[in-house]
Amino acid sequence: MLVLMRQDATPDQIREVQLKIGELGFRAHEIPGAERTAIGITGNHGAIAPDVFTTLPGVDRAIPVSKPYKLVGREARPESSVITVGTSRIGGTELAVMAGPCSVESREQIVAAARSVRSAGARFLRGGAFKPRSSPYSFQGMKEEGLVLLREAREKTGLAIVTEVKDTGTLPAVAEVADVLQIGARNMSNFSLLEAVGELRTPVLLKRGIAATIEELLMAAEYIASRGNLQIILCERGIRTFETATRNTLDLNAIPVLKRLTHLPVIVDPSHGVGMWEAVPAMSMAAIAAGADGLMIEVHPDPASALSDGAQSLKPSRFTALMNDIRRLAPVVGRTLNEGSTT
Amino acid sequence: MLVLMRQDATPDQIREVQLKIGELGFRAHEIPGAERTAIGITGNHGAIAPDVFTTLPGVDRAIPVSKPYKLVGREARPESSVITVGTSRIGGTELAVMAGPCSVESREQIVAAARSVRSAGARFLRGGAFKPRSSPYSFQGMKEEGLVLLREAREKTGLAIVTEVKDTGTLPAVAEVADVLQIGARNMSNFSLLEAVGELRTPVLLKRGIAATIEELLMAAEYIASRGNLQIILCERGIRTFETATRNTLDLNAIPVLKRLTHLPVIVDPSHGVGMWEAVPAMSMAAIAAGADGLMIEVHPDPASALSDGAQSLKPSRFTALMNDIRRLAPVVGRTLNEGSTT
Amino acid sequence: MLVLMRQDATPDQIREVQLKIGELGFRAHEIPGAERTAIGITGNHGAIAPDVFTTLPGVDRAIPVSKPYKLVGREARPESSVITVGTSRIGGTELAVMAGPCSVESREQIVAAARSVRSAGARFLRGGAFKPRSSPYSFQGMKEEGLVLLREAREKTGLAIVTEVKDTGTLPAVAEVADVLQIGARNMSNFSLLEAVGELRTPVLLKRGIAATIEELLMAAEYIASRGNLQIILCERGIRTFETATRNTLDLNAIPVLKRLTHLPVIVDPSHGVGMWEAVPAMSMAAIAAGADGLMIEVHPDPASALSDGAQSLKPSRFTALMNDIRRLAPVVGRTLNEGSTT
Amino acid sequence: MLVLMRQDATPDQIREVQLKIGELGFRAHEIPGAERTAIGITGNHGAIAPDVFTTLPGVDRAIPVSKPYKLVGREARPESSVITVGTSRIGGTELAVMAGPCSVESREQIVAAARSVRSAGARFLRGGAFKPRSSPYSFQGMKEEGLVLLREAREKTGLAIVTEVKDTGTLPAVAEVADVLQIGARNMSNFSLLEAVGELRTPVLLKRGIAATIEELLMAAEYIASRGNLQIILCERGIRTFETATRNTLDLNAIPVLKRLTHLPVIVDPSHGVGMWEAVPAMSMAAIAAGADGLMIEVHPDPASALSDGAQSLKPSRFTALMNDIRRLAPVVGRTLNEGSTT
Repeated sequence: MLVLMRQDATPDQIREVQLKIGELGFRAHEIPGAERTAIGITGNHGAIAPDVFTTLPGVDRAIPVSKPYKLVGREARPESSVITVGTSRIGGTELAVMAGPCSVESREQIVAAARSVRSAGARFLRGGAFKPRSSPYSFQGMKEEGLVLLREAREKTGLAIVTEVKDTGTLPAVAEVADVLQIGARNMSNFSLLEAVGELRTPVLLKRGIAATIEELLMAAEYIASRGNLQIILCERGIRTFETATRNTLDLNAIPVLKRLTHLPVIVDPSHGVGMWEAVPAMSMAAIAAGADGLMIEVHPDPASALSDGAQSLKPSRFTALMNDIRRLAPVVGRTLNEGSTT
Repeated sequence: MLVLMRQDATPDQIREVQLKIGELGFRAHEIPGAERTAIGITGNHGAIAPDVFTTLPGVDRAIPVSKPYKLVGREARPESSVITVGTSRIGGTELAVMAGPCSVESREQIVAAARSVRSAGARFLRGGAFKPRSSPYSFQGMKEEGLVLLREAREKTGLAIVTEVKDTGTLPAVAEVADVLQIGARNMSNFSLLEAVGELRTPVLLKRGIAATIEELLMAAEYIASRGNLQIILCERGIRTFETATRNTLDLNAIPVLKRLTHLPVIVDPSHGVGMWEAVPAMSMAAIAAGADGLMIEVHPDPASALSDGAQSLKPSRFTALMNDIRRLAPVVGRTLNEGSTT
Repeated sequence: MLVLMRQDATPDQIREVQLKIGELGFRAHEIPGAERTAIGITGNHGAIAPDVFTTLPGVDRAIPVSKPYKLVGREARPESSVITVGTSRIGGTELAVMAGPCSVESREQIVAAARSVRSAGARFLRGGAFKPRSSPYSFQGMKEEGLVLLREAREKTGLAIVTEVKDTGTLPAVAEVADVLQIGARNMSNFSLLEAVGELRTPVLLKRGIAATIEELLMAAEYIASRGNLQIILCERGIRTFETATRNTLDLNAIPVLKRLTHLPVIVDPSHGVGMWEAVPAMSMAAIAAGADGLMIEVHPDPASALSDGAQSLKPSRFTALMNDIRRLAPVVGRTLNEGSTT
Repeated sequence: MLVLMRQDATPDQIREVQLKIGELGFRAHEIPGAERTAIGITGNHGAIAPDVFTTLPGVDRAIPVSKPYKLVGREARPESSVITVGTSRIGGTELAVMAGPCSVESREQIVAAARSVRSAGARFLRGGAFKPRSSPYSFQGMKEEGLVLLREAREKTGLAIVTEVKDTGTLPAVAEVADVLQIGARNMSNFSLLEAVGELRTPVLLKRGIAATIEELLMAAEYIASRGNLQIILCERGIRTFETATRNTLDLNAIPVLKRLTHLPVIVDPSHGVGMWEAVPAMSMAAIAAGADGLMIEVHPDPASALSDGAQSLKPSRFTALMNDIRRLAPVVGRTLNEGSTT
């Protein structure tokens, strides 16, 4: 922490800050400046609340210098983490692709989606049974029934299941089926839910909130990690900006930045990130080229009849074509994509 | 809903859209334009998902024209709602002021805060027992013990208690003490929690999310209303923008806009809205001048020793001075402020 | 400037930073921390570019601590500046109200507007002759002819003229007529234009850019001041955010913040700030209550036939009613509003 | 244009809108709805100002349906434009890479930069002689002297020169040297400058403003095109958002969106887009994978001693490595990169 005094701060006010630092058991380092005095603080472990100082007279600002997260930081663990899900790994050289419909809508739909996703070479099936929707009058998902269908789709295809958990009440039921528990963007700061999944050992896919900074995303991951679950996959899915031509603004800058700050794997959801299916292939390629460890893509057997997110869902044929492009891109960035699959 | 065809749309594509509209049981109205064809849809009750059409070939855009919220809209209820809490009313001509510390920290602290808040003329005590914090390592509130102290503060001062509920698990305990249940900005889109408070009949103070549009705030209120609880107070508390000189950007535009769109009362939280105590009085006055029905202000007996939000908390003496200014401002905007109190 | 080393920085890297500081003629102050080393820099006058250090190996961040503006800062001039325009003053206890149409459209229109504005008690007539428009196909203003009409309106009413200058080419012509030169939001970072008006001694009304931080607004003012023109009035007119219910988000937080950082007067343009006439009165009152030194409001004799900004323009009758409300509000915040005028 | 009436609009108000549409010489199409009446307008060429209707009683909103730009739109010219600069082409299958220092600082620096840039395979040298800087006290560029050095660098290397023009006053001097005139982000809405370069036939590189929507970028290009210069290259260089971990948020979504809306070539500036050199290679690869026609990258012989933007400048060796990666990526997205060059 660095405390900056106002230009007109009195010696007494400077002394008061130094005393406060002493009280807290830390060491104060005065830096007399041309314009103003700054006081460095050392001896603290973890972050100090700036307010402790900004409320003192004569103080201009207090600037935290140490990072607020520990367990998920690269400084705590220099080598990258690899999350293992069944026979697949997320964060290694092989790209992880999670694909499927926004919502589970029927047995036919989810099984058809799973088969096409698998034949295209993906190893994870995404699909929501419990859907957080901005309107109480919109389709809220098939709930428990949807979970049953997801289990069935896994049995039929061998794909790992990635599905969203929207509250602590339904967590036990969802956790029983999910191979990867998805925390949606709206719940990134739902700390009670983060703590609950932190108590489990199931891998968690944590989506960045639409207005969350990269640091806040890491602090949300720290909530999960602090409860003992380090099986965390971060997901960039677009942030909210002034631009209205696209549903969100996909922040691919976050990939190289996160790779430097954390050891956790990072994947990208271009479907929500841009919000229109025509642009999903371009943004999928961009995400992999930027260094993402994988993708989460919405694929629907019949987008025009989808109960949600139809406009941003790819048809199976387009998804297959995209997977072939990704397969050609992968080696250029030192990656591989499921060579076993037929295309 | 208005469906806009692309300039190069074929007659067949236009026909396909009209057929789709028919299938859904609605009426299509073709508007042949100089540049492109538009198709109006009528006969629908409530909103249609644009995706149903944007996924069809030849379609450029689909523009919703009816509002997605019903119960909380002015069109459903032209006269303004007034929420009654004990002997106080929120939304009437008398301004409602909710003040107190960010967190309950001790019996001494909360009782001292309550007394000073009351003597300044406020009728609601705010204070958090369960605190959602961005770091798992920060003070998380006194929890159940804090609720006991809030109850005690109410007995000693007669102030109504406004306290935050952060999850469904602790809702029963919080609801037992709270006169007004606060839903924080981070939980505005926690639909399970919104549904849960919707089942109660306790008044709910719903804070706008940091990246929530005015329409999304109204949809969150609609979630609560759709379960039968119409005792809802909306709260503007600042949104996240590019500006870093302040903690948030207080969006006072939201007051006149919300007043036109909804019958629910609207209050403002200038403490979070600007994030520095020096600016809280100015923004409090601005909120009332803009037509707010009340304020939620952080007041702490000793901000420098506060465990949270010290930098944006007013000292009791400053809060008393502010209340006197508000008392002089009120009649200018056709309001009154608790004349019973001594100043 | 404070230079933060990475946790894994080597002693050699720390030494290299200290040498660099020495080379630049400054003093380095090492602050050995629990987690990482920080190095404070003193002896510099004005800001140092952080890049000088962030490009060195082992450096994590470089944090500037001194403010980049000098002449416009409160620290340079503690007492507030008052700008005198004819018999009026901007920045004193009397509120300055600038009103009129977005564009000068005809003799009848501007003279009618001027008369109604004056009779309502305003002392400044706003009106654009040269209009920057986002479409090359939109009305671009009456140009030179508009300037002639503004001069005529001044002769007929005695109002001071506030009109926008959009480029250096037309500056001489505009400066010949303008009592106050307006720099629009789009030109806030047009440094060549800022330097040109800095060479004059005509008062300048500098509007905040839609994506400009408060600090950038002050740096733009510093450009003008650095050329010798300190007759600067700052204007908050709304920033661009994710909210689409209003044209812009009026950032009234900027008023108390600017008042603390600079000695320059600050006014508010609620017409652009909210973008709908129904909300202009509420936001005008809010701006004054927040401490603004005045207002710039769009008033048009017949908004429905306005060639630009009709939707956010007040009719003369509504403007008169607003002025009466402001007249009642003024004393509550220690201000006055032109008592001489008839209403 | 679609005019939406309020739910409580009277038949007279609806009639008034229809009359107004008739007055303007257009046709009105009434769409009686379940909730409210909508009125479609046809017969207009180009956009109508919504204000014409929103100012009428009973009107809720007016929604424009036709695009405001014409000449730069894909609908006006389905095939993509290719800009020819000397022997190079921008917008074809070969990727265009523009590289060099932020500012021209000396003969040694610019010639060294040019040589390394060329040997890495780029065909355009970027470098600023006139620099718009946010502080009046920062280095403003070598001005005319810088232009002379750029000309010299071209003679020595054969690279085409891309340099920024910051105002109309210096345009003649800059245009004499520039092979491509760069309009910086701060000047994207400097319409006088856009009109001036529109009068020339030199190719123009138009950078997106930090808060400009994609539509506003296209309208700025329309300003240039409307004066007859269609040699326009659009450049995405990052927008301003709430994220502070990076200098800007590079909006790669803009690439597929622009490719659909306009026939103009689109390149990306990852240096400003992310603001830290470590992340520039990742974002360069992402831009090409997303479909960009080229890149503008800051390269400096000695970033640590750069007078501006050192932190985001690549060393020649890193730039060469990046070019090799791009050379391997190009064929994956159906592109090529200057095969003539030695690496």
